[in-house]
Amino acid sequence: MKEIKAFVKPFKVEDIFHHLLGAGFPNLTVSGAEGTGNLESSDPSVSTHFSITDSPVAKIEIVCTDKDVDKIVSLISDHGRTGNPGDGIIYVSEVKEAYRIKNGENIHLK
Amino acid sequence: MKEIKAFVKPFKVEDIFHHLLGAGFPNLTVSGAEGTGNLESSDPSVSTHFSITDSPVAKIEIVCTDKDVDKIVSLISDHGRTGNPGDGIIYVSEVKEAYRIKNGENIHLK
Amino acid sequence: MKEIKAFVKPFKVEDIFHHLLGAGFPNLTVSGAEGTGNLESSDPSVSTHFSITDSPVAKIEIVCTDKDVDKIVSLISDHGRTGNPGDGIIYVSEVKEAYRIKNGENIHLK
Repeated sequence: MKEIKAFVKPFKVEDIFHHLLGAGFPNLTVSGAEGTGNLESSDPSVSTHFSITDSPVAKIEIVCTDKDVDKIVSLISDHGRTGNPGDGIIYVSEVKEAYRIKNGENIHLK
Repeated sequence: MKEIKAFVKPFKVEDIFHHLLGAGFPNLTVSGAEGTGNLESSDPSVSTHFSITDSPVAKIEIVCTDKDVDKIVSLISDHGRTGNPGDGIIYVSEVKEAYRIKNGENIHLK
Repeated sequence: MKEIKAFVKPFKVEDIFHHLLGAGFPNLTVSGAEGTGNLESSDPSVSTHFSITDSPVAKIEIVCTDKDVDKIVSLISDHGRTGNPGDGIIYVSEVKEAYRIKNGENIHLK
């Protein structure tokens, strides 16, 4: 079982989700954050929360089976891309156990 | 050492924390996010941040010893449950190292 | 490849970032959260979002190579410290794969 985290441009979230949903992956969580990096080429907008950060980013979190990782990474990468600096990154980590709160069951994904 | 992440209904956070605190686990971090999934049965409220998401979720993050995982997962699951779709999930990952900033010490939890 | 997560005092973020940038680590993501813990000695400010939490925290996320972990942890720890309870924690987890969205390439960090 894996966790996929993607830091993407906020205006790309809707398109990414549309394609994930179409491919059979309706479950994800999105939250807001602020990114630094690529400072020389960044958007001139200034964060209202942390003065050192230079652009809002959306963080997508998905837990999935090992076999779905490549498909999900490709969808996020393909539909999150503008080709400009600051498109963001995706990274994949191991998840040991997952539980559905609705019934307390251990989700034995592989 | 493990990281427990739980995506739960925001109105359940207070009760979950109350029970974690009572069981000797006072340290956690909570942040807001938005979830998709169970679209057919979801709350009709519309996210103001990401138009594709359908409900606010609270994300709880806890770092704990291996031996405390089952107890904490049970408390979150039992007190986060409504029995309806969208109650959320809990997942557990490995943490390699942890450090307390107050004194810089490596917390050697097992 | 590792993920470093740090939960720090929000007013320390700017100084931490300044030192990370100076040491050649310009890429990070910051988001807001709320922490519990150290309740007896905490700031009296009351969270507006979750009534059980007692103080705002900033969450810093950085993905880096294995060899940079110690340097980054030290910088965050040294510059995030006030010496008072509630300075926060840093923890380090394994990352399996990372991809740059700009071009879809797998970032083979070690």
